[in-house]
Amino acid sequence: MLKTGVVGAAGYTGLELLRLLAQHPGAEIAVVTSRNEEGRAVPEVFPALRGFVDLEFCNHDTSLLEECDIVFFATPNGTAMHQAGRLLDSGIKVVDLSADFRLRDAGLWTKWYGEPHAAENLLDRAVYGLPELNRDKIASANLVANPGCYPTAVILALIPALEEDIIDRRMIIADAKSGVSGAGRKAAVHTQFSETSESFSAYAAGGHRHLPEICQALNEVAGDSVSLTFVPHLVPMVRGIHVTVYAKLLQGDAGVQAIYERRYRNEYFVDVMPDGSHPDTRSVRGSNFCRIALHRQERNDMLIILSVIDNLVKGAAGQAVQNMNILFGLDEKAGLEAAALSP
Amino acid sequence: MLKTGVVGAAGYTGLELLRLLAQHPGAEIAVVTSRNEEGRAVPEVFPALRGFVDLEFCNHDTSLLEECDIVFFATPNGTAMHQAGRLLDSGIKVVDLSADFRLRDAGLWTKWYGEPHAAENLLDRAVYGLPELNRDKIASANLVANPGCYPTAVILALIPALEEDIIDRRMIIADAKSGVSGAGRKAAVHTQFSETSESFSAYAAGGHRHLPEICQALNEVAGDSVSLTFVPHLVPMVRGIHVTVYAKLLQGDAGVQAIYERRYRNEYFVDVMPDGSHPDTRSVRGSNFCRIALHRQERNDMLIILSVIDNLVKGAAGQAVQNMNILFGLDEKAGLEAAALSP
Amino acid sequence: MLKTGVVGAAGYTGLELLRLLAQHPGAEIAVVTSRNEEGRAVPEVFPALRGFVDLEFCNHDTSLLEECDIVFFATPNGTAMHQAGRLLDSGIKVVDLSADFRLRDAGLWTKWYGEPHAAENLLDRAVYGLPELNRDKIASANLVANPGCYPTAVILALIPALEEDIIDRRMIIADAKSGVSGAGRKAAVHTQFSETSESFSAYAAGGHRHLPEICQALNEVAGDSVSLTFVPHLVPMVRGIHVTVYAKLLQGDAGVQAIYERRYRNEYFVDVMPDGSHPDTRSVRGSNFCRIALHRQERNDMLIILSVIDNLVKGAAGQAVQNMNILFGLDEKAGLEAAALSP
Amino acid sequence: MLKTGVVGAAGYTGLELLRLLAQHPGAEIAVVTSRNEEGRAVPEVFPALRGFVDLEFCNHDTSLLEECDIVFFATPNGTAMHQAGRLLDSGIKVVDLSADFRLRDAGLWTKWYGEPHAAENLLDRAVYGLPELNRDKIASANLVANPGCYPTAVILALIPALEEDIIDRRMIIADAKSGVSGAGRKAAVHTQFSETSESFSAYAAGGHRHLPEICQALNEVAGDSVSLTFVPHLVPMVRGIHVTVYAKLLQGDAGVQAIYERRYRNEYFVDVMPDGSHPDTRSVRGSNFCRIALHRQERNDMLIILSVIDNLVKGAAGQAVQNMNILFGLDEKAGLEAAALSP
Repeated sequence: MLKTGVVGAAGYTGLELLRLLAQHPGAEIAVVTSRNEEGRAVPEVFPALRGFVDLEFCNHDTSLLEECDIVFFATPNGTAMHQAGRLLDSGIKVVDLSADFRLRDAGLWTKWYGEPHAAENLLDRAVYGLPELNRDKIASANLVANPGCYPTAVILALIPALEEDIIDRRMIIADAKSGVSGAGRKAAVHTQFSETSESFSAYAAGGHRHLPEICQALNEVAGDSVSLTFVPHLVPMVRGIHVTVYAKLLQGDAGVQAIYERRYRNEYFVDVMPDGSHPDTRSVRGSNFCRIALHRQERNDMLIILSVIDNLVKGAAGQAVQNMNILFGLDEKAGLEAAALSP
Repeated sequence: MLKTGVVGAAGYTGLELLRLLAQHPGAEIAVVTSRNEEGRAVPEVFPALRGFVDLEFCNHDTSLLEECDIVFFATPNGTAMHQAGRLLDSGIKVVDLSADFRLRDAGLWTKWYGEPHAAENLLDRAVYGLPELNRDKIASANLVANPGCYPTAVILALIPALEEDIIDRRMIIADAKSGVSGAGRKAAVHTQFSETSESFSAYAAGGHRHLPEICQALNEVAGDSVSLTFVPHLVPMVRGIHVTVYAKLLQGDAGVQAIYERRYRNEYFVDVMPDGSHPDTRSVRGSNFCRIALHRQERNDMLIILSVIDNLVKGAAGQAVQNMNILFGLDEKAGLEAAALSP
Repeated sequence: MLKTGVVGAAGYTGLELLRLLAQHPGAEIAVVTSRNEEGRAVPEVFPALRGFVDLEFCNHDTSLLEECDIVFFATPNGTAMHQAGRLLDSGIKVVDLSADFRLRDAGLWTKWYGEPHAAENLLDRAVYGLPELNRDKIASANLVANPGCYPTAVILALIPALEEDIIDRRMIIADAKSGVSGAGRKAAVHTQFSETSESFSAYAAGGHRHLPEICQALNEVAGDSVSLTFVPHLVPMVRGIHVTVYAKLLQGDAGVQAIYERRYRNEYFVDVMPDGSHPDTRSVRGSNFCRIALHRQERNDMLIILSVIDNLVKGAAGQAVQNMNILFGLDEKAGLEAAALSP
Repeated sequence: MLKTGVVGAAGYTGLELLRLLAQHPGAEIAVVTSRNEEGRAVPEVFPALRGFVDLEFCNHDTSLLEECDIVFFATPNGTAMHQAGRLLDSGIKVVDLSADFRLRDAGLWTKWYGEPHAAENLLDRAVYGLPELNRDKIASANLVANPGCYPTAVILALIPALEEDIIDRRMIIADAKSGVSGAGRKAAVHTQFSETSESFSAYAAGGHRHLPEICQALNEVAGDSVSLTFVPHLVPMVRGIHVTVYAKLLQGDAGVQAIYERRYRNEYFVDVMPDGSHPDTRSVRGSNFCRIALHRQERNDMLIILSVIDNLVKGAAGQAVQNMNILFGLDEKAGLEAAALSP
């Protein structure tokens, strides 16, 4: 059994990691930490885990982390970069669910996250943990930068089209919609129930932090610079991301459906739905699947790609567990075999 | 006091019309009809109207309609086209909230609505009832085709940009999101609470009936053929439409914010918000306003236009009352002066 | 036009007061204050009020309040008691929407609110502002303690039964359910969308602050001591309170429906629905109505009373405006004539 | 591997059975039937099951059912009673999730369900499938009447108190609140999203079908006739039942917390929470747990019992699987070990 530690376990991605790890056949939870909940028992904070996790939250800098095989950071941005180095030096594998190791360019990180990067030396060692893109690199890595929720949904939507070079790279639009849990579990006015229920709006339409992360990955896939417009929106629901991608086809239909089916044929967690489908977020709720469907409207050459994930699972904790499975040579599906909870 | 009749008053747009007309200073409700609720009292079906409307629902073909000054059709598509002619012949003004008179081309109507048009002869007389575009024509019309909810939000978002010719007409994308009340008040599985709550999805991504209606209007505004990709989505909320429009600017910024503010300066119901705003649908809930905001992301020439309305008010019943006010020379704001209900 | 001031206008009851006062035919808003939003313009904080209220939020202790005819306190508990005295001394009428002046017994206040009362001398002058109970006293008062949201719904549900002495006073149960806006507009974890959506729970089941307030009023109505069990619950909706009251009938049916209809015949804002009705909260959303229905189950003598209000209107801001109307001899319905917004 | 069949698998309890059975270590799904969806593949109707269940829906009377070890009826009331006999005769075990075999008294069934009972002869053989009450009888049964959702939550809340005779049996109140999925997956107006979202109401306050079922069980537990008032309410959420029970303690506190903890110490699926807890429905979402907490308010002798379940799991499909496990001597927790999905 792998001994796992979760730093920042009192947020939603932390809670989801605990739920998945508590039921993982090859892992056990050895340490959980939280600044705000230090000293409290996990089931006191998360009654849903009564009987599943009985640990107490420790402080972030507990030495117990040193005894783990793998440590997950489910912390706000800017925390993992201060702690990961020491753990890596002790031979512990690290999966960071925050943004600290996602951007290869420290300057870009500073620009979007507003502070200098504290562990530039580690950026080269970090592998971007999207298994469908980087499975082999992840298998031999020690430090995995778990992708953001939006990036996961957008990149999976575009990999086949960019790899096959069938769309115009200079004008891609990703109109993204997320449930409110993406904003995390913290006291704030704008994510209060009364502020978000029965309402819908865009946010960060002038530029969102996930934009450079997505572009970095798409550039690599395309082998060239991609121009992306990305607008996120807040949906009055807890879980789920739906991305609607618009891209101009370079020549006619190009057999898009077949291209997507072929690319993802062996990817258990990516489901290319039948032509004409409209994936809904509840069809992936609580599961690690990404479902994708393709559409075109008569008389135009715009490819419409619909892509849904559960932001807390494939968009965060589930993908982190998938990465752990790859890191340690376990069955990639271990602990992630649940069907979606619907309705 | 204008005597008004509402045909198909037991749906949501009907209910909203009753709410607005019951409190309108210059109108009274004389007749309400419904196929399903015939014989029942309005407050029995809609307890929210107890004390405001005491009428009973009649059958659609009641002769009482002949005694009205104006009749609203809040019926499913394909009903008004059978009844409007007779009322017009009696000198009664008609505002049709369904799609029957929106498309000028009967062939196009048949293509999208699946049946022959029953009143082709009236299509020429029908004025498309978007006051911000056709105020003068409405003032002298007898038959008003009240715009669809999505078209209202999309067209208002694009009028200034197309009139000023600052965007590329060949590639406009409207990613639209609607609350569930847009689907109407009828027994159906896919709009059950348990089907739509805590979920999000696109629908009709291959082509939605509002597409030709929007294009017809945009073509007129642009004076040229416009190419639009339109994808609607269902949001787990009751009221509200949010449209995110993407269009390529032909040359740099072009003073877009000023162009929009100038175009709508005298339009009471269109609110161009300050630069950088993100309108949310609850800021227009229950009101007749459309709020619009403009964005650009660094390094690219894509104009992002955010536009919100309440689909049942500016997207249906409120706009119908606005049209009534214009038809009869009343203050255009009469009965529509309520602020949004928020939170 | 009455000059009104709203202290603590940046919360939900404050926002609702602004919405109602902005559209009141006999009042104008002269001052709005807020500790958190001082210096910002109202429409910046509340875009729904763009075009309706253009003032800036001042600090609570602005001298502008002295120029008002009436000042509303929409502040957290413990604020009004420090400021009301000075305003009253200046001849300004005060309606306090917080709990500061609701309990006659300062010791009881201290017990439930955890601090000494700062204006014991004013408690005698404060009139409990439930018009259906105290209309005449309100008319001649200067200081009105606006009832809490739960108390309003529970007391209105019980007045006729207690006045007519048809139920057992020693065992009354009020099972209450509230929308989340009742918790106010403040940063907190437990009222986040992701914490309250798709969930339901009781809270304060061991004793809630509204219990002594309700009992004080019921004791007066009954002319004797009443024993009440009151359990509030949180409903995943924004607005609305539903109370289900259980009380043992002393003798058979006793003509309960008729008793309720008679008691409230002349109360415009209290709607006794037909026998067998189930009022829903949306039938009062945005309106000042309380709807009540009565039920019994075969073979037992338990009277079931269902009572619904909009917690922000009849449960707070609407009732405050109703009290203002009474205080100044205006039509009691002025500014409160809107029908509910449904769906 | 047990061969299982699900009759009426296209409703929500059917879907939930499929989700649980598809992941059950000791069972496989051999047949699924549906009147409405006959001929369609399961994943076409329920995309959440893509990759988990590939069967097609058959007609109810398929002979394939005869080859099962166990057949579940997830049909509307009045269906199982026509089909169960033949299956039982073939030696197949039957778990009926509808109400057909819950009431021992056929006359009572007719009274509440409005038609004669078609299989009176089987009523004696049916065991009421609440394992915490009837585990041994279930183990040796062939026909299990799976309890209703409300009854499960109410009965579990009252078993310890009635067994220990510490409450007044003549006056028990159960104020129950359910998510909308309890109404099933069928086309109807009153459970549309736009009808139930942002609203709350009671229904069937004059008498609900679950009342006689609950009373039958409580009478048995108490060994005497119990008088219950039961009022259900509809909550704008998909899953979850919360019951608030009020009962008069016969003498002081009586060590209630300890009595409940002792009674349920060995019941894996019943969680007596620490004193002062407020269970929320999301803490059991998707899981088979029932969580219970106890409260009292000062100065009165009313015991308040809070009880939550997921109506589709412990209130339907999960309990049915639990019963299957008992019927076949499997580990009672098999296939039911998932933690709740939260948030």
